Amino acid sequence: GNGRMGVVYDGADWEFSSRARVVFTLSGTTDGGLEFGGSFRADQAGDGATGAWGADTGNAGSVYISGAFGKISMGDVASAPEALFGDLASVGYMGDSQGTANGGTNNIPYLTLDDGTQSALLYTYSAGAFSVAASMSDGIGEDLGSGGDDQVYAVAGAYTFGNYTVGLGYEVIDWDAAGVDNTTQLELAAVATFGNTDVKAYYADQQDGIIDAAFGISAATTFGATTVAGYVQQIDAIGGGDVTWYGIGVDYDLGGGAVLSGAIQDDDVTGSDPTANFGVRFSF
Amino acid sequence: GNGRMGVVYDGADWEFSSRARVVFTLSGTTDGGLEFGGSFRADQAGDGATGAWGADTGNAGSVYISGAFGKISMGDVASAPEALFGDLASVGYMGDSQGTANGGTNNIPYLTLDDGTQSALLYTYSAGAFSVAASMSDGIGEDLGSGGDDQVYAVAGAYTFGNYTVGLGYEVIDWDAAGVDNTTQLELAAVATFGNTDVKAYYADQQDGIIDAAFGISAATTFGATTVAGYVQQIDAIGGGDVTWYGIGVDYDLGGGAVLSGAIQDDDVTGSDPTANFGVRFSF
Amino acid sequence: GNGRMGVVYDGADWEFSSRARVVFTLSGTTDGGLEFGGSFRADQAGDGATGAWGADTGNAGSVYISGAFGKISMGDVASAPEALFGDLASVGYMGDSQGTANGGTNNIPYLTLDDGTQSALLYTYSAGAFSVAASMSDGIGEDLGSGGDDQVYAVAGAYTFGNYTVGLGYEVIDWDAAGVDNTTQLELAAVATFGNTDVKAYYADQQDGIIDAAFGISAATTFGATTVAGYVQQIDAIGGGDVTWYGIGVDYDLGGGAVLSGAIQDDDVTGSDPTANFGVRFSF
Repeated sequence: GNGRMGVVYDGADWEFSSRARVVFTLSGTTDGGLEFGGSFRADQAGDGATGAWGADTGNAGSVYISGAFGKISMGDVASAPEALFGDLASVGYMGDSQGTANGGTNNIPYLTLDDGTQSALLYTYSAGAFSVAASMSDGIGEDLGSGGDDQVYAVAGAYTFGNYTVGLGYEVIDWDAAGVDNTTQLELAAVATFGNTDVKAYYADQQDGIIDAAFGISAATTFGATTVAGYVQQIDAIGGGDVTWYGIGVDYDLGGGAVLSGAIQDDDVTGSDPTANFGVRFSF
Repeated sequence: GNGRMGVVYDGADWEFSSRARVVFTLSGTTDGGLEFGGSFRADQAGDGATGAWGADTGNAGSVYISGAFGKISMGDVASAPEALFGDLASVGYMGDSQGTANGGTNNIPYLTLDDGTQSALLYTYSAGAFSVAASMSDGIGEDLGSGGDDQVYAVAGAYTFGNYTVGLGYEVIDWDAAGVDNTTQLELAAVATFGNTDVKAYYADQQDGIIDAAFGISAATTFGATTVAGYVQQIDAIGGGDVTWYGIGVDYDLGGGAVLSGAIQDDDVTGSDPTANFGVRFSF
Repeated sequence: GNGRMGVVYDGADWEFSSRARVVFTLSGTTDGGLEFGGSFRADQAGDGATGAWGADTGNAGSVYISGAFGKISMGDVASAPEALFGDLASVGYMGDSQGTANGGTNNIPYLTLDDGTQSALLYTYSAGAFSVAASMSDGIGEDLGSGGDDQVYAVAGAYTFGNYTVGLGYEVIDWDAAGVDNTTQLELAAVATFGNTDVKAYYADQQDGIIDAAFGISAATTFGATTVAGYVQQIDAIGGGDVTWYGIGVDYDLGGGAVLSGAIQDDDVTGSDPTANFGVRFSF
């Protein structure tokens, strides 16, 4: 499980914010050597009365089976590119639970399966320096706003050489409505490690969607018990209205699973104040 | 806990379907040797905010105390006949989560306590070859559709000789509305084991309800790691409109708690297509 | 975890009532010797879909960090005086889940943080015979009925000498609405142990609220496996309309975590019948 407690400045007031979570991890092995398992949090278990959401319904947490053929996961899985590249460096004890006043966080704006409530399939496979992944929604009435039965697909690949990894991802929303072009997004991502410093950068090019492009970079450096991390991202909206946002944070490891952590995040939207948080993260 | 992942054909489309569950099992013993305990799933824990449903409220999961006098269970218990006879053989990796296009599954249509959201009491007692059970709802505003304070009762008995068990059950819904006759259902059930084959059959005769009778039979044979199972049931509605439905499935045990499983189910309702599922069940 | 099962008389009917609960307890220690942790029940985990309530959102369960400076807790914490004085002696297998026909229980009517759904901070510190506590709500839109952004604060202190503890608490609701006086409540509490008998008494004086005063006393005596407990409380409403209520109960310890328990509770409201319950409490 994990927990956190601290104070949050939302641009107007300081407030307390805390939480506690328990994670269930299940695993087994078949006689033939296939590994299988699943994982979800107690608050994701679902509501057996309504079956509207949860690990019990397959749109929270996930299950998997893996072997020489790779790993097949089902449930609330990430899209193929997010599975390979992840997000930018997290800042503050609230992580991506607190963003800027307009909602920007360290999360990379992937096109598909990024809201954590869809049931989908993810396939990943690694062979030496190469990793590939594919993902798709489950076909059960995915209504992404069009009122229809939309589907999402994505593929991604990554190549690692020494301390460098580069990757490419491609995501598609296949809108159900007639005469509407598929929205697609191509992502280029790079990760590098220089001594105690990790750097991650991406560029995303969207077609037939609501933005032109998004790009960002983050860096995190650790010296002793202290880690300093920062990120900056920009979204170029169609027809102007670009937004840049960033965050910077400091972690201090208290040992035993407790980390003191603070961050400031802001964006360049007119009239938007910075946000901040300072507290302790626990892992048990 | 347990989990599953696979593909489901609902008569129109193939879709993915997965889930993960954790089961809590609690037990203890008094100084005098009485055993007590309880069990519920994480998704059945309930919502402490509303208290509308869940093990916390007593209408999901159950608790029990047992001794020489038998076993008293409270919560979301089965009716007396279901406690002794169970349901027909399950087919497919989805079990009774997927039925035919009109909802038929391997579940026997017991009259009472069969929807899993009622709080009730179940008493069971075994002595040698004889088993008896009694169940009743808890009296807390059970509205089964009449808009009133309906009550349900049931008794059942079973006798086992060698590889054969025969049993009788009787269930009553005591409608609160004035001038409405109690709905009753009498069930006759038989279970037999022939080598590696299990057979179960039942006949249910309803009075003052919406059906005349229901009957069904299932068989399951295991050879090595493979189990083949099938069931067929029929409901005779009052004034005609009978429905027959059936399912056939194959399980292949992968060992370690993983079972590959597939099934086809269908009914004879006009215009209704077969359904199917194929996937893996996990138990942890 | 814990559970219970039994029968309840609500003043009109006897009904069954049962429940089962699981408690998650998390803890750790930093390299510097600070202790941290958290606790919540499975039914308090929260609903990850809505984030409306739960340990995941910080208004159920709690997290803490403690050291030589005292203990800081966040989440669904008690008010400062409740943290030091608790409630009167509990009666019956239902505890405070069943009260009199008008809702009176063994709970002391603290002014703040007593409904179990607010996110707040609690600080406690003990040095020798002295204990102090302070609590406040988290500033996140606490609407206590005024439609505004109300805040609550409380402080309390206790002094223990031999088998006696006396304490003082002071609670404030700072209503957000303009021109409305803060509601305050001063509490005096005393706890004494005489051999196998525990006695607790309090007097609460409210200003600018809906009552004038509240007071009560409870006693619990244990002889062998049997404990007899009782409480009586009174609320003096502004402009008359005083209510007195009481409860008496007997527990019999079966060992192994099971306790047989029954109680009767009643109030002096005209036309109100006594309530009762009898059953078994389990702790696992």
